[in-house]
Amino acid sequence: MLHYELLKTDGQARRGRLTLNHGTVETPIFMPVGTYGAVKAMSPRELEEIGARIILGNTFHLWLRPGTEVIKALGGLHGFNRWPHPILTDSGGFQVWSLGKLRKIEEHGVHFASPINGDRLLLTPEESMRIQHALNSDIAMVFDECTPYETDGQLTTQAEAAQSMQLSLRWARRSRDTFERLGQEQPTNNPGNGGGGKGTNGQNALFGIVQGGMFTDLRDESLAGLTTIGFEGFAIGGLSVGEPKEDMIRILNHVAPRLPQHKPRYLMGVGTPEDLVRGVAAGIDLFDCVLPTRNARNGWLFTRFGDLKLRNARWFSDPRPIDPGCGCYACAGGFSRAYIQHLQKVNEILGARLATIHNLYYYLTLMQEMRVAIETGTFQDFVKRFHTDRCRGIDGDDALGGND
Amino acid sequence: MLHYELLKTDGQARRGRLTLNHGTVETPIFMPVGTYGAVKAMSPRELEEIGARIILGNTFHLWLRPGTEVIKALGGLHGFNRWPHPILTDSGGFQVWSLGKLRKIEEHGVHFASPINGDRLLLTPEESMRIQHALNSDIAMVFDECTPYETDGQLTTQAEAAQSMQLSLRWARRSRDTFERLGQEQPTNNPGNGGGGKGTNGQNALFGIVQGGMFTDLRDESLAGLTTIGFEGFAIGGLSVGEPKEDMIRILNHVAPRLPQHKPRYLMGVGTPEDLVRGVAAGIDLFDCVLPTRNARNGWLFTRFGDLKLRNARWFSDPRPIDPGCGCYACAGGFSRAYIQHLQKVNEILGARLATIHNLYYYLTLMQEMRVAIETGTFQDFVKRFHTDRCRGIDGDDALGGND
Repeated sequence: MLHYELLKTDGQARRGRLTLNHGTVETPIFMPVGTYGAVKAMSPRELEEIGARIILGNTFHLWLRPGTEVIKALGGLHGFNRWPHPILTDSGGFQVWSLGKLRKIEEHGVHFASPINGDRLLLTPEESMRIQHALNSDIAMVFDECTPYETDGQLTTQAEAAQSMQLSLRWARRSRDTFERLGQEQPTNNPGNGGGGKGTNGQNALFGIVQGGMFTDLRDESLAGLTTIGFEGFAIGGLSVGEPKEDMIRILNHVAPRLPQHKPRYLMGVGTPEDLVRGVAAGIDLFDCVLPTRNARNGWLFTRFGDLKLRNARWFSDPRPIDPGCGCYACAGGFSRAYIQHLQKVNEILGARLATIHNLYYYLTLMQEMRVAIETGTFQDFVKRFHTDRCRGIDGDDALGGND
Repeated sequence: MLHYELLKTDGQARRGRLTLNHGTVETPIFMPVGTYGAVKAMSPRELEEIGARIILGNTFHLWLRPGTEVIKALGGLHGFNRWPHPILTDSGGFQVWSLGKLRKIEEHGVHFASPINGDRLLLTPEESMRIQHALNSDIAMVFDECTPYETDGQLTTQAEAAQSMQLSLRWARRSRDTFERLGQEQPTNNPGNGGGGKGTNGQNALFGIVQGGMFTDLRDESLAGLTTIGFEGFAIGGLSVGEPKEDMIRILNHVAPRLPQHKPRYLMGVGTPEDLVRGVAAGIDLFDCVLPTRNARNGWLFTRFGDLKLRNARWFSDPRPIDPGCGCYACAGGFSRAYIQHLQKVNEILGARLATIHNLYYYLTLMQEMRVAIETGTFQDFVKRFHTDRCRGIDGDDALGGND
């Protein structure tokens, strides 16, 4: 099931509640990325503690390892990874597209060589739906082609972007059809499932993805086509693929307000804290990005007062936590910048863990603050304060030191 | 401070209570190894949850990275790694000895090239005491030379072992003297420290290490020499260095009962679950070993019913936890063998974490069971049941499957 309730708006920003087969999600929300079924360095318990309520799984990676059958046998992705709350899976489209010259895109689907063992593989809309059905994710995504920003240094032309978007629309139709057929033929064991079919309580949800590159009229055409097919939610794809930030903002601000008002809206693969605030301001409900987790492992920490590069020599003997005002286990637990820097330098797993806990806590707290701001009609004030705080900087001697 | 209370004996096995500056430790106990200040893959909170109450830190590693000064500035090792309970540090002697041809042992100390950057370094009894004093470990160890079992394929002769043991005795005297002097000159900030000096409440404890290779009369001579110097506890060193198991058992059973009755006894770097049971039976109170943590990361799991090699293909889709009867987060949390195998195969940090939690929980639970058995005077029964259970095997189809 998917039920989206729009609770409150503040400008374009939306405060909503998304009810899915495995639980309820307060929106806007950030979804930590669990590529191989685990959010890197985190346990399910820790994810719950920092306020995560929906995570993302990567269809492409899980299809290759350990494969669909074993996950299905263990009760779907929830049974496999012991995450009891909602899961969204991507379609694998972005990952095969990212293989570049190693893949060949045809009408039927994408041929590619497995990056694990070189096997020749084919991913199609139908196969992606079969995998996501076996994973039993609460939200599945249509299989699509991500329109590149440029190819071999040449900007994608409108004609190329249109061709790509049209292919994605045809794949969206095939995705929808297969998703429905699988729901009828192989009902999930979700609570309340009366036997499958769209609208049945136990049936999962399928989202369409708006493509069209940097061309607003193609974006409109894509959205119109997807709306005709019909989806439980809509995503904006093809952003954060190398385009200038102003193009990203232009497309976001054009598409987001045009998405159906009473369905959830998802901005895929975005982004920085600033991007999240910008996305919420434009009316986005769901975000995912590897940035907080990947950067954490590389010592790049996000805080209310700017980013902190933990491996900088200046923190070598600094006794302060990453952010003295933060409530995460790493900060409230009193682990110093000196200690976490040391752990990361000597490749101790705890170094990746503490940094990841902090970054995800920061992202999820930021979303929580935005939810409160929308509820109380103070989102504009929040945005101003957010930028002032973030620009203050944590790196200056007169920065966090003054807070101790 | 160090206060050891011998609560109960059952044969040679001892149930005791060790009170140190940072807390009380029920013995016999296993100490997880935190080489660089963190027990690999674990957080302090998780260590507490599985029942760890004392951990080991490696002087050699922490001296090289991040160095003594930064740890001292952050309040010693407890302040640095946020472990509020007791810590024992080794002396660095075993690590420099393990460098083999890269080090040169002289009367004054050990010259060696830093494995980090090639710097020429010198570790002496005095330097080791200075480092351990800065770390402020509850229990420091004397700097000693580990007598090799063999050198270039030749068994160590009694003359060689005697020479090595005598050097260790002279170093033990220098260690004791420096430890006392540092305690007087630079009192720790431990609660109850009236200004340092042996026997003062806030002063930490120093253990001597019995050496002498595979020769019982040299072991006796070493113990006699150490007893004359005087230590708060005694360790057996130079075992688990490549000798046959029967030699290890012979020396253990010879030395352990001869150690002072009313002081704690520590068997260094040992070992398997069977070794722990054997050690307790011989009267040992403290153990440390990298086996449970290192093996966990390589997919070797210890259970009551034998060891489980997690990466074996037979567990590929096995829905059972590592040990259905185990209460650790990995097992009681329902994480399947299939899932943890998958995590380890794709190098997910959570794979190392869950396996480490399980192995350490097993080790600490084994120690807890032995403490109860000694208290209730049923240690012999325990040992019989332990061996029966461990021999049953977890690998057979008729093994754990029957428990589900």
